[in-house]
Amino acid sequence: MKYSTLFGKTTKSAPHDAQSTNARLLTQAGFINQLMAGVYTYLPLGLRVLKKIQDIVRGEMNALGAQEIYMPALHPKDIYDTTGRWDKIDVLFKLEGHGEKEYALGSTHEEVVTPLVQQYIRSYKDLPMAVYQIQDKFRNEPRAKSGLLRGREFSMKDLYSFHTSEEDFLQFYERAKQAYLNVFRRCGLDAMIVEAGGGVFSKFSHEFQVATENGEDLVYRCACGFAQNREIAEVKAGDPCPSCQKGIIEEIKTIEVGNIFPLKTRFTDAFGFKVAGPNNEMMEVVMGCYGIGPSRVMGSIVEVHHDERGMIWPKQTAPFAVQLISLSSKDATLRENIEETCASLEKDLEASGVEVLWDDRDAGAGEKFADADLIGIPLRIVVSEKTLAEESVEWKERSETQSRFVKLADIIEEINEVTFLDRKTKTAHA
Amino acid sequence: MKYSTLFGKTTKSAPHDAQSTNARLLTQAGFINQLMAGVYTYLPLGLRVLKKIQDIVRGEMNALGAQEIYMPALHPKDIYDTTGRWDKIDVLFKLEGHGEKEYALGSTHEEVVTPLVQQYIRSYKDLPMAVYQIQDKFRNEPRAKSGLLRGREFSMKDLYSFHTSEEDFLQFYERAKQAYLNVFRRCGLDAMIVEAGGGVFSKFSHEFQVATENGEDLVYRCACGFAQNREIAEVKAGDPCPSCQKGIIEEIKTIEVGNIFPLKTRFTDAFGFKVAGPNNEMMEVVMGCYGIGPSRVMGSIVEVHHDERGMIWPKQTAPFAVQLISLSSKDATLRENIEETCASLEKDLEASGVEVLWDDRDAGAGEKFADADLIGIPLRIVVSEKTLAEESVEWKERSETQSRFVKLADIIEEINEVTFLDRKTKTAHA
Repeated sequence: MKYSTLFGKTTKSAPHDAQSTNARLLTQAGFINQLMAGVYTYLPLGLRVLKKIQDIVRGEMNALGAQEIYMPALHPKDIYDTTGRWDKIDVLFKLEGHGEKEYALGSTHEEVVTPLVQQYIRSYKDLPMAVYQIQDKFRNEPRAKSGLLRGREFSMKDLYSFHTSEEDFLQFYERAKQAYLNVFRRCGLDAMIVEAGGGVFSKFSHEFQVATENGEDLVYRCACGFAQNREIAEVKAGDPCPSCQKGIIEEIKTIEVGNIFPLKTRFTDAFGFKVAGPNNEMMEVVMGCYGIGPSRVMGSIVEVHHDERGMIWPKQTAPFAVQLISLSSKDATLRENIEETCASLEKDLEASGVEVLWDDRDAGAGEKFADADLIGIPLRIVVSEKTLAEESVEWKERSETQSRFVKLADIIEEINEVTFLDRKTKTAHA
Repeated sequence: MKYSTLFGKTTKSAPHDAQSTNARLLTQAGFINQLMAGVYTYLPLGLRVLKKIQDIVRGEMNALGAQEIYMPALHPKDIYDTTGRWDKIDVLFKLEGHGEKEYALGSTHEEVVTPLVQQYIRSYKDLPMAVYQIQDKFRNEPRAKSGLLRGREFSMKDLYSFHTSEEDFLQFYERAKQAYLNVFRRCGLDAMIVEAGGGVFSKFSHEFQVATENGEDLVYRCACGFAQNREIAEVKAGDPCPSCQKGIIEEIKTIEVGNIFPLKTRFTDAFGFKVAGPNNEMMEVVMGCYGIGPSRVMGSIVEVHHDERGMIWPKQTAPFAVQLISLSSKDATLRENIEETCASLEKDLEASGVEVLWDDRDAGAGEKFADADLIGIPLRIVVSEKTLAEESVEWKERSETQSRFVKLADIIEEINEVTFLDRKTKTAHA
């Protein structure tokens, strides 16, 4: 795609309340645009990233055997009356429709998914089963100042699992942990599993936390794998590790990128959801819920992967694999040659499954390089008078400082050898 | 995919207020589930259909040169104050956040897209340009009784185009018409372009209407292509056609599946959105908007394509291409043979890009055939004692009444010859 025609170019101005790195860089690079605090439009570059993250999440959920559904955001009040949460969820947006009917905007979907599954699942033979959705959630946050990390409207993947026993639930819970670690690894995030409190439902839950100096959470952890969040931590920095007895606890700043909860029978009991057992006795249904916010993951990637010049996208989440830059010449013939070389390169790269953003603007090298660094596409390929004289391009990885010349004739081969670029793959209707 | 493990099986009970064919059939077949009037969950089968329709729309919008973005559903009040529509849009859901801030839920996005585009587009050289999104809209409908045809929450594709002249706008408007006709054709809908009123913005607009006996709209049309909707019709049934002077006007019941509007400078004026012209003079920006509701299209397909036994999905929108049915045997060896034949068929078909739903349940032929007819997948392939004795399967198209035997060895070849099935194709991140 030609950068000259892309909607959402780079801009020098950051949002006036952009206190967070992710909001500032994503805005300046033309990925997102703030409509109001905590509420953003995804511009073409940002939407490409968001969809890639959603597709990674979708793939791992499908591999887990969960089935994708899509539940509404608009909820009737009565389902919250059943669980007693109408006044307990403090971030619930409430509104009124015709006939004084009261609605809430979904901040979570236990009240919808539990009676939904109850309508179709009648026997222990149908369990375990799990459904998930990727959908927008709404939260009436008093403060929303962390860019994509804490929004009033945000993308969420919520998975719900249903089981006839605690043992079966725990087995699935461990598999879900692995699926979550896969998601974060594919998104370029090194997530750790952290023990957290269970809230009103359970004794424990787990968070997935990513270390970063701008993190708003604190985690106490040991090299052995022991990690507790601030709320439940029984240790402090410098303490001996209560788990391995050998290591020393360190305190690190983190961002939470996912969490998983045992819900026991909190919601199935409220809706009277039981299934028929082997001897036709009624069995309790044990439930778990598992959340990842794709938009929050997007913000977290930026918090972790950036430098003073801009973002550095991990390969599977980059909006494009290659940023092609043509530097114009004063000589008309050379100018045409540069143009044609770029057009042909773009075609060849796209044909071999490499997505290309071509900065074809009539602008100087300084501006184009600065914009490429800000946007953070993994590989920059420059075509100019100088490179053409060598029948080459200048090849520079965003994460490296050095560039090198690569012969035009060798580019496709070189591209096929690198491991830091993502390729378009067949995606089925999942 | 095995039907035994699919979430959302067929059910005999229709929603108690299902007055519409689409709500009844989609619910009974396990495609959707009503949470409340006008608000539905998409179960796995329904979500597959919805995504296919959204992908068709996305493909045609991209081909038109429009760029995909994703705007928020939560809107601040001030943007409606600017256009004076806060109290004029009667279906606007309104809600309150912290600090007595007032929000609306998007029923349309002119108030968001206009100032958004204004931030990035400064020069006449950047026009024309068009952006679209596929996103959920909310409407506080007093009555919502037509299933997916009129929802309180529904999927919408809204496209907005920006131009420096009326002529340029009209050129794009005609191209958008063709893109819309492509969308409906690919969805198996024979849509006609109907003249409609322009509301407060313009003298005219156009609707895309599909003839069906359950339609809630009325259109007056002639075979020559002349067609007007009920609101603006200057003719009645039996009148001579005012356009061709030869034909006779007929009155037909229809469903509206899309509409396109000239907005002139109604919104760009309100936001003071002008661009710099060739001589640095400020130029007005002319705007158009173009809507298709993928969920409404899904409901319309069912209204048009069904019989007394169930739905009949057009190929590009079918949840699966083939419904494979194994009929069990009392003989253990035969039973195993049937099972193995189906497993191998499913594998071969999927490998050649044909999506298969395999009804592997321990149920009788009557129940399985009735469910297959209700679900409406284009091709039914049955494997039983009887067919295996002939080294064959029973092959029946949903739209036909006759079935025939096809040799197991010939199935892939036969499949490759049929034109009524859709194949998985490479889909890129758009």
